[in-house]
Amino acid sequence: MTFELTILGSSSAIPTSKRNLTAHVLNVHERFFLIDCGEGTQIQIRKNKIKFGKINHIFISHLHGDHIFGLFGLISTFNLLNRDKDLHIYAHPELEKFLAHHIEYFEKTLSFNLIYHHIKPKVNEVIYEDDKVTIETIPLKHRVPTCGFKFTEKPHLFNLKKNVVQTYQIPISKIQSIKEGADFINEEGEVIPNHKLTLPPYKSRSYAYCTDTAYSEKIVPIIQNVDLLFHEATFAKNMKDQAKKTFHSTSEDAANIAQQANAGKLILGHFSARYKDAQPIVNEARSIFEQTSEAEDGNKYSVDLEREKR
Amino acid sequence: MTFELTILGSSSAIPTSKRNLTAHVLNVHERFFLIDCGEGTQIQIRKNKIKFGKINHIFISHLHGDHIFGLFGLISTFNLLNRDKDLHIYAHPELEKFLAHHIEYFEKTLSFNLIYHHIKPKVNEVIYEDDKVTIETIPLKHRVPTCGFKFTEKPHLFNLKKNVVQTYQIPISKIQSIKEGADFINEEGEVIPNHKLTLPPYKSRSYAYCTDTAYSEKIVPIIQNVDLLFHEATFAKNMKDQAKKTFHSTSEDAANIAQQANAGKLILGHFSARYKDAQPIVNEARSIFEQTSEAEDGNKYSVDLEREKR
Repeated sequence: MTFELTILGSSSAIPTSKRNLTAHVLNVHERFFLIDCGEGTQIQIRKNKIKFGKINHIFISHLHGDHIFGLFGLISTFNLLNRDKDLHIYAHPELEKFLAHHIEYFEKTLSFNLIYHHIKPKVNEVIYEDDKVTIETIPLKHRVPTCGFKFTEKPHLFNLKKNVVQTYQIPISKIQSIKEGADFINEEGEVIPNHKLTLPPYKSRSYAYCTDTAYSEKIVPIIQNVDLLFHEATFAKNMKDQAKKTFHSTSEDAANIAQQANAGKLILGHFSARYKDAQPIVNEARSIFEQTSEAEDGNKYSVDLEREKR
Repeated sequence: MTFELTILGSSSAIPTSKRNLTAHVLNVHERFFLIDCGEGTQIQIRKNKIKFGKINHIFISHLHGDHIFGLFGLISTFNLLNRDKDLHIYAHPELEKFLAHHIEYFEKTLSFNLIYHHIKPKVNEVIYEDDKVTIETIPLKHRVPTCGFKFTEKPHLFNLKKNVVQTYQIPISKIQSIKEGADFINEEGEVIPNHKLTLPPYKSRSYAYCTDTAYSEKIVPIIQNVDLLFHEATFAKNMKDQAKKTFHSTSEDAANIAQQANAGKLILGHFSARYKDAQPIVNEARSIFEQTSEAEDGNKYSVDLEREKR
């Protein structure tokens, strides 16, 4: 029951020799969600040993080049590999128009269906749902329409304790309702309370991806109590003016959001290429929000399974 | 007086974890010529510590994605860095139309002039010339209009031997003609033959870039005696049929061309991603043409300075 984030690129608009352009992969129970796709993403996917065939859904925060120029090569490679599974892209409607023009010129035909899901960056709404995860948009504040994405694991079921099926002679037909929290009434009419039969369910885990964005408290209620929060910190705190002007965040902005949202862990990234070392930015954030980590290409973050309290 | 090739990417259409997409940089006397620009080229330029500001001329062999998708990010980065020097792109005319559409959408305005030079891939002609180098097209045989590029250093001058100016009382006005090979006649009318005054000039060095292409003997006269020959070997020799079908070359094709051209060294690259190890391909070529080398990302090849014989 994996819930693991891999950072493929942690630079802002200009890559460096150590930081590629923005892209993340979230693995939720072996379903791999690609979030943004800067230049070089397909190479980073390979280097991180993620199978191309497992990527079926791509989420694009906004249409700036450093978040999408990797799509051209990725789609081209999928096509060369004769991919046949549908590929879903969730993005601002304009991407469809732009990509269509591109594909028409360079690919002519595709071996797979490319399915566009037009998102409304200004609205917080569920844009994807399956039996394991719900994905919703987080309206952000940037120079062009931009949204983040929140991934929330579907609630887990209660787990049956060892041997209870035999001990209490539970028929198969009753097991699902017990896993959902019901008590069990046996043939004699005796009520066996759920807590005698089960362990509490694992907590549902969550990840919020917030880039690119200026400081925006409006996102706090949406990302409240998120386990992992990726928030951009393009600039150190002494560049507050530049951050405001370009609709980006500083170390302090990110930390303040994490604190208000009561996040489990804050991951900082999207660092300006001017910073050879991001550690001072991370330290600035840590002075406000201790559980702060520096995104580096290839870093993996997972959330441990922990049981709910009764 | 550098003449050095750097391999930025050595894979064919699909990158691998070790091989990026096609791009080379040739340094001729500290002028850096970028040849093709696959996805990730700007990152490879950084990793190889080549200064962006030194790249003023980009040569594009053909309009397949794996040779040009890096242009979008490179141009974007140049723009973000407020480049002001002109950038010259030598390519099939269609690239201008396509890039213009792209730039209009993603960049709006550029901080520098982008100057297109339309090349005719079917013709062997000089497309660039300065005081150090001449660059000409090499018509290749691929599925779309494609050409390679031959870089030839301008002829060097004779070098004056030590102390000859003093010994023979040569006036400054005569030095240039002596460097060009003339004898010197002193005030007494005595002829001092050039070989007493000079060392022979260094040989002019050359590099030919031939990808993507099927086997084509037509290129042999153009690349005759080239010092460094990069020739694609997408496939091993047992995939001759696939090579023919896709208008690519095998190890043997490349080696046969190198042999007929009497190349100084053959560099093989553009390997299909199916080959985890390119060594067997290189060995196949070596059995025909001994001076064969495997292009790997980051490899550098230079040609030593050697004097002409009198």
